[in-house]
Amino acid sequence: MLHFFPPNNEKMRSKVPSLVGVVDVLVANLEDGVPLGEKEAARAGLVEVATTVNFGTTQLWTRVNSLDSPWCLADIRAAVVDCAGAVDVIILPKVEGPEDIHYADRLIAQLEAESGRSTPMLIHAILETARGVANVEEICLASPRMQGLSLGPADLAANRRMKTTRVGGGHPDYLVRSDPDPENTDAPRAVYQQDLWHYTIARMVDACVTAGILPYYGPFGDIRDTTACADQFRNAYLLGCVGAWSLHPDQIAVAKEVFSPSAAEVAHARRVIDAMGDGTGAIMLDGKMEDDASVKQCQVVVQLAAQLAATDPELAALYGIGN
Amino acid sequence: MLHFFPPNNEKMRSKVPSLVGVVDVLVANLEDGVPLGEKEAARAGLVEVATTVNFGTTQLWTRVNSLDSPWCLADIRAAVVDCAGAVDVIILPKVEGPEDIHYADRLIAQLEAESGRSTPMLIHAILETARGVANVEEICLASPRMQGLSLGPADLAANRRMKTTRVGGGHPDYLVRSDPDPENTDAPRAVYQQDLWHYTIARMVDACVTAGILPYYGPFGDIRDTTACADQFRNAYLLGCVGAWSLHPDQIAVAKEVFSPSAAEVAHARRVIDAMGDGTGAIMLDGKMEDDASVKQCQVVVQLAAQLAATDPELAALYGIGN
Amino acid sequence: MLHFFPPNNEKMRSKVPSLVGVVDVLVANLEDGVPLGEKEAARAGLVEVATTVNFGTTQLWTRVNSLDSPWCLADIRAAVVDCAGAVDVIILPKVEGPEDIHYADRLIAQLEAESGRSTPMLIHAILETARGVANVEEICLASPRMQGLSLGPADLAANRRMKTTRVGGGHPDYLVRSDPDPENTDAPRAVYQQDLWHYTIARMVDACVTAGILPYYGPFGDIRDTTACADQFRNAYLLGCVGAWSLHPDQIAVAKEVFSPSAAEVAHARRVIDAMGDGTGAIMLDGKMEDDASVKQCQVVVQLAAQLAATDPELAALYGIGN
Amino acid sequence: MLHFFPPNNEKMRSKVPSLVGVVDVLVANLEDGVPLGEKEAARAGLVEVATTVNFGTTQLWTRVNSLDSPWCLADIRAAVVDCAGAVDVIILPKVEGPEDIHYADRLIAQLEAESGRSTPMLIHAILETARGVANVEEICLASPRMQGLSLGPADLAANRRMKTTRVGGGHPDYLVRSDPDPENTDAPRAVYQQDLWHYTIARMVDACVTAGILPYYGPFGDIRDTTACADQFRNAYLLGCVGAWSLHPDQIAVAKEVFSPSAAEVAHARRVIDAMGDGTGAIMLDGKMEDDASVKQCQVVVQLAAQLAATDPELAALYGIGN
Amino acid sequence: MLHFFPPNNEKMRSKVPSLVGVVDVLVANLEDGVPLGEKEAARAGLVEVATTVNFGTTQLWTRVNSLDSPWCLADIRAAVVDCAGAVDVIILPKVEGPEDIHYADRLIAQLEAESGRSTPMLIHAILETARGVANVEEICLASPRMQGLSLGPADLAANRRMKTTRVGGGHPDYLVRSDPDPENTDAPRAVYQQDLWHYTIARMVDACVTAGILPYYGPFGDIRDTTACADQFRNAYLLGCVGAWSLHPDQIAVAKEVFSPSAAEVAHARRVIDAMGDGTGAIMLDGKMEDDASVKQCQVVVQLAAQLAATDPELAALYGIGN
Amino acid sequence: MLHFFPPNNEKMRSKVPSLVGVVDVLVANLEDGVPLGEKEAARAGLVEVATTVNFGTTQLWTRVNSLDSPWCLADIRAAVVDCAGAVDVIILPKVEGPEDIHYADRLIAQLEAESGRSTPMLIHAILETARGVANVEEICLASPRMQGLSLGPADLAANRRMKTTRVGGGHPDYLVRSDPDPENTDAPRAVYQQDLWHYTIARMVDACVTAGILPYYGPFGDIRDTTACADQFRNAYLLGCVGAWSLHPDQIAVAKEVFSPSAAEVAHARRVIDAMGDGTGAIMLDGKMEDDASVKQCQVVVQLAAQLAATDPELAALYGIGN
Repeated sequence: MLHFFPPNNEKMRSKVPSLVGVVDVLVANLEDGVPLGEKEAARAGLVEVATTVNFGTTQLWTRVNSLDSPWCLADIRAAVVDCAGAVDVIILPKVEGPEDIHYADRLIAQLEAESGRSTPMLIHAILETARGVANVEEICLASPRMQGLSLGPADLAANRRMKTTRVGGGHPDYLVRSDPDPENTDAPRAVYQQDLWHYTIARMVDACVTAGILPYYGPFGDIRDTTACADQFRNAYLLGCVGAWSLHPDQIAVAKEVFSPSAAEVAHARRVIDAMGDGTGAIMLDGKMEDDASVKQCQVVVQLAAQLAATDPELAALYGIGN
Repeated sequence: MLHFFPPNNEKMRSKVPSLVGVVDVLVANLEDGVPLGEKEAARAGLVEVATTVNFGTTQLWTRVNSLDSPWCLADIRAAVVDCAGAVDVIILPKVEGPEDIHYADRLIAQLEAESGRSTPMLIHAILETARGVANVEEICLASPRMQGLSLGPADLAANRRMKTTRVGGGHPDYLVRSDPDPENTDAPRAVYQQDLWHYTIARMVDACVTAGILPYYGPFGDIRDTTACADQFRNAYLLGCVGAWSLHPDQIAVAKEVFSPSAAEVAHARRVIDAMGDGTGAIMLDGKMEDDASVKQCQVVVQLAAQLAATDPELAALYGIGN
Repeated sequence: MLHFFPPNNEKMRSKVPSLVGVVDVLVANLEDGVPLGEKEAARAGLVEVATTVNFGTTQLWTRVNSLDSPWCLADIRAAVVDCAGAVDVIILPKVEGPEDIHYADRLIAQLEAESGRSTPMLIHAILETARGVANVEEICLASPRMQGLSLGPADLAANRRMKTTRVGGGHPDYLVRSDPDPENTDAPRAVYQQDLWHYTIARMVDACVTAGILPYYGPFGDIRDTTACADQFRNAYLLGCVGAWSLHPDQIAVAKEVFSPSAAEVAHARRVIDAMGDGTGAIMLDGKMEDDASVKQCQVVVQLAAQLAATDPELAALYGIGN
Repeated sequence: MLHFFPPNNEKMRSKVPSLVGVVDVLVANLEDGVPLGEKEAARAGLVEVATTVNFGTTQLWTRVNSLDSPWCLADIRAAVVDCAGAVDVIILPKVEGPEDIHYADRLIAQLEAESGRSTPMLIHAILETARGVANVEEICLASPRMQGLSLGPADLAANRRMKTTRVGGGHPDYLVRSDPDPENTDAPRAVYQQDLWHYTIARMVDACVTAGILPYYGPFGDIRDTTACADQFRNAYLLGCVGAWSLHPDQIAVAKEVFSPSAAEVAHARRVIDAMGDGTGAIMLDGKMEDDASVKQCQVVVQLAAQLAATDPELAALYGIGN
Repeated sequence: MLHFFPPNNEKMRSKVPSLVGVVDVLVANLEDGVPLGEKEAARAGLVEVATTVNFGTTQLWTRVNSLDSPWCLADIRAAVVDCAGAVDVIILPKVEGPEDIHYADRLIAQLEAESGRSTPMLIHAILETARGVANVEEICLASPRMQGLSLGPADLAANRRMKTTRVGGGHPDYLVRSDPDPENTDAPRAVYQQDLWHYTIARMVDACVTAGILPYYGPFGDIRDTTACADQFRNAYLLGCVGAWSLHPDQIAVAKEVFSPSAAEVAHARRVIDAMGDGTGAIMLDGKMEDDASVKQCQVVVQLAAQLAATDPELAALYGIGN
Repeated sequence: MLHFFPPNNEKMRSKVPSLVGVVDVLVANLEDGVPLGEKEAARAGLVEVATTVNFGTTQLWTRVNSLDSPWCLADIRAAVVDCAGAVDVIILPKVEGPEDIHYADRLIAQLEAESGRSTPMLIHAILETARGVANVEEICLASPRMQGLSLGPADLAANRRMKTTRVGGGHPDYLVRSDPDPENTDAPRAVYQQDLWHYTIARMVDACVTAGILPYYGPFGDIRDTTACADQFRNAYLLGCVGAWSLHPDQIAVAKEVFSPSAAEVAHARRVIDAMGDGTGAIMLDGKMEDDASVKQCQVVVQLAAQLAATDPELAALYGIGN
């Protein structure tokens, strides 16, 4: 998962070493959340962290200010030129179309050449405008630098004029209602709450997979409601996302749990794979038809387990994967 | 909201002045709902109303017959040339692709030139075919005359072969069911009704926002079931629509209520905005993380309240906005 | 509905004549489900069935191996050249974009010319990759040979990295949760399960209707759970699909029932149509507004009933359609 | 060839019957060449001619005013609705892109429906802007109504800022010069005049053939210089045009002669075709290699001869084609 | 015309003031012609000239190094940020497609914002690769900053592998030859030299006019052969170009003469315009047909004369245009 | 150059070994020139030659029948599968658009997989339809298998309805004429023959260079007129082509001479390169301005010389390139 920290905040900078190895990615956030007057301090904080901390296998990314802001050019220059190669990925917020990626791609290329950087800086875009969603396939395909996409539900809601002030999650007013009882039309009618984000996440996942890049759910704002946070993360996980953001230490554990399959799921997947032999043909198992395609579904689960176990001994034990 | 009336009906024409100031837009409907034999009468009724009623700040729009009908050319000519500039927007039904908008755009331009009309006639399109949905982004971007889009759920359902005969709203048969209880596979299983219109409305909203035009939900057919009507309108409102149609006086009140935020929502939005000072940075409020993006969400609510309060003293009082 | 059989299996081949007249389409499956070592046997089985069975009004289709497999070229040649014109439609799996259809289209044309086949072989594509969904409109419009599209939920789930090992149907973990009770935040909160497939089916239906071809739901893997199978089929039916696959005799009855309207629905649709006279104008019926558009919705139901009744005497009796 | 006449001029109208059977097409010109004050008279003249003259196998076309003029809508209405089906083709001047054809296409369709016209009105476009040339392929492919394209060299030259005031033909200043004699650099150097129109005509021909429509050279302004007129027509003929305009009776004979192959050419073409038997293989004839492709070249000449001979007894005799 | 000077050369810099008012545009050349070791000096020279010379109505442009060079980013920054607003246009060499213009456009926008520049910096592109020619329409339409295009014949020839080492102009080996005399096949046969650049210039002109920008011929390398230089410039002028480059003081006079119409041409154009009254209708003049279109051709000449006369008293006298 | 032979002709097959090392490429021609009744014999002849002759550094290509012929599928199969890897390039005739290349590309890929061929078969397309020219850029970019393009002037002329029965070369009737002498309008006027193929070759060269593939002129039909053949080849060479076809042994020498630069040209090119040192900056040489761009032009000549000298000792000596 991506864990965000504000590099303008000295205390938070000092905690960065303690998060190395705990989270997959540390994101130095230069954009929303950093007060207007601390933009330069945040950029300097990024450079300080990048050039002083040993990140091991944890990655360091940075979210720069948007392309129409006065800070973007200097933010990108700092990330590419001044961070001694420590930044792996630049997160571009508020991407609207492929032209935004094309611009960043070439600017980064010119700065890489200038600075002698030898590995390509990758780009992760945030989907947080309606136009970005309408162009999401083109955005994902816009450059070989594209690493992935995150959903930014707060900005996207505002841009769409969605009447929710929540950052991700459900809304009690989005619902369908059962028909009235014809015998008693005044009787209460059951209501069923609906998912505000189904279309957006499903289309984003397809766009990412089409381009061979990775989809992530983004932030969940209600830090206290870890249950709802887990629900939202799990929906994204089920629909095909590979991770989410954490804004607070409490969300790190939530993300870890949600984005790991359960032992039972892994066991079931293995059982299908084993029963299918060379992976072709069709069998009945527990009353269900399994064939070449269900093997592929099971491999998604098993491969994810193997990948997680490789760096997490607890999960390795849980899944029975020896080292 | 858009209130429809049949201009072929003399009684309905006579009520038009009483609706001025009550609804945002009065729509003289020349298309579906007007019997075959009254198409010319409806057109004449439009011209009569347009040239005799004083509309004040209420707008007069007209829904013309579709581009493949024998009435369309004369309908558009009447709206542009014969209505003394009183018609603000032409509603084009059954729009399939940008080519429909291009054609109407240029025809209107030639008629404007002929008639000396000095303000541009705008176009509002109805999304009521599968091909229209597949082309919705191109439709929205097809012309600077585009004012907005409405969903037409009845025609769209028929065109898609959806097996519902309802005009908008839910359907009791669209549902997912919980897994059987492994201990008791014959036990009843909970079912959860789903929203037939999620994809359609969500994609339509994105297309409109991309083009800078306004999305509306359209008609709700079950006049008696104002509860379900409110549910449908509220779903559209939450997903980003700015209004809906009313087909009957009873629906005017429903639309008014649904498309206005509650006092509590406005108060909450103001509280976040106030707490965020210049609108940048990040804070914790009631256990939730708020930052630049959540401020934008709150501004959507506050700006809508201000806009409504400007013409509605009751809402102004409710929101505490003095005049 | 499409009923699949494995032509490599002699017993299944021998049952084919007994299914003629029972199902709409018999599909000789050469792809997933056929073991690696039996690919040639399956192809030979197709040719045997095609050249020896009298299919009457039941159609014979075949699902060939995918375009990137080593069997595809020979499979297509067999279907077009060696089956004596008995195969009506080739099902192409794992279609990713219009280029796949273009290739198959021209190859079939060259083989038709070579073999002197006089009716055009049609193509039915399966939507089972994220890229296929992203390109679904172009796929449907790619050739006049296109007959329709089926959803392949297992392959699609695997390709998207959806964390479900089910073949179609719901998943208990995809849910939204009601807000906590502010008075008692520890109280249990209602959850509402969501439909994993809403976006995919809705967009597929629009793409098919845009191109004038037919959308089908595909396989449902849990053969035992006919209730959930019916739910899934009915959702697709409501959203606009015209049929589904059956993998097992038990699913034939499910499909028959789901894809036929009920007598009550047909009666209601007829009542609206009758009340609307020439199909134009607007009336109130049971408190609902009905107009030209609702007539079209009702005609969808009535025409489907008539179509089913033409070949099914029981349904004809149920709908009161004499012969 | 297309012979233009001004229908506002009564004397010219009275000569129309005498041109029937003499020219292939009579074009009633409503656009350039008709004085501002006579636009309505020209339109009325068209209707008079169309409804009173018997055109036999000669076609009647009309050049309407351009789409951005105040006369276009009424011109098209007159041609489609008021001319009793006598007009075969509308010539649209100053076409810039496919959108112009799309607009005219649909407007004509609506007027055809209104007037009950049963044969489709065709469109011939004039290429007389730089943007038209840049879009020429799209223009040709824009509609099945497209009959052909003419080059309009005067408007095109003005639009391109070409510094020539001639209407077609060469210009003495467009030339290349031989290198100086190194022995005598002051010696006069040979100059070679170049063709201003090579690119334009060659690309126009390709665009027309791509769309299956016919390319024409347009007007030649220097009525007295019939030699240069013949040169210009012949260049177009060689490059693939099928005809040209005549603005004056003197040019009718020029066009007839240029656009007919000579007897020697026809004889040579027949000789190659005869020598090639079934049209395949390769032979040497007069020291030249002839094969399947050269047979096709010869067929172009022979078929043109046959087509001309069918209506022109003199040419029939010249080519030795009996009736 | 555009006069190029090398700002790395102090002597040339010192001559700049003497060229103000003599040429239309002074181009500080940072690219080809500047030795590798003097790139920084050239950039500094540009800044010195820009900030010290008073340019009056003469424009200052600069040709920066190409987008794939190590100097481009700093060159553009210098032109936009460091030249105190004195640079009107940036010439981008080796433009291959619209993506090059898009990148420069946005980079300039960000630098303008940074530097507070208030008038938009325009872009002039050089067409000097085959891919640039293939994309020339898209290049011209890529941005509202586009001012014009120049042909770069040397780079373009090299990129195309044209076997000429000349910079513009003709080539004695590009020729067609008359047929052999059938009576005497050994007799010498006339040869006709052809224009290497016809297609390129004609297509470039159309692309520019389509986008509303200005086409220029570029450099002519043979400084001594002013006759051939004048030929080349005149061809471009006739085909629609509005100017050319001068690389040497001797070429300034050539360009001035070629790109001004002769007094006779201006007089003829005026005569046609006068004879045509309101510019509509058709007349015969000297045996030529003149109509609305020929008036437009004549206006091109007359307007050019007026424009030149406005700043050149000699030409004003020549054309009889008083001040 | 490409030398064509008919593999259906046993005598010609027997001469193949004698041409190895003499020509660059031997093309076994299965298409135009092979009589209808010898198509299978030609294909068998190709396989015989391919599997028995040792080609050394000479390449073996084959021109297959066109995609709409009944022989194409078998021709391509023979070339890919049956020729033991001896065929380097397939020449596809009558290519109309990128879809033709896409089809051949994938068919070849499937046959390569089937036959275990390990080096990719390349594709050379012939431009011989108007639609091919209109789509030439897309054709060149359609696949990484594209090796180059040849102009097919005979088919192209027929398809365009050009009124020439010659295969390449000039036409005496395509000419511009000098103005009449105003003093003596009856005096003979000079005429200047024009190049029929300028636009076609120039655009083809740009398309090829854009895609990084090689342009060739194709056949010249008048075997006896080697002078005109040399003219046509030289024009193509100057405009950027890298070779041509020979249909007859006499044309081999013509092609060799034309497509090799003269010793004087090579010497001049070397002189410029030497004078320019590191290739940057600007100098005057013989009164001509030379800079970075002219160096590139000269390198085209010098590199071609080096390439030719590598396999041709006579040219090596002529250019003074030691081995």
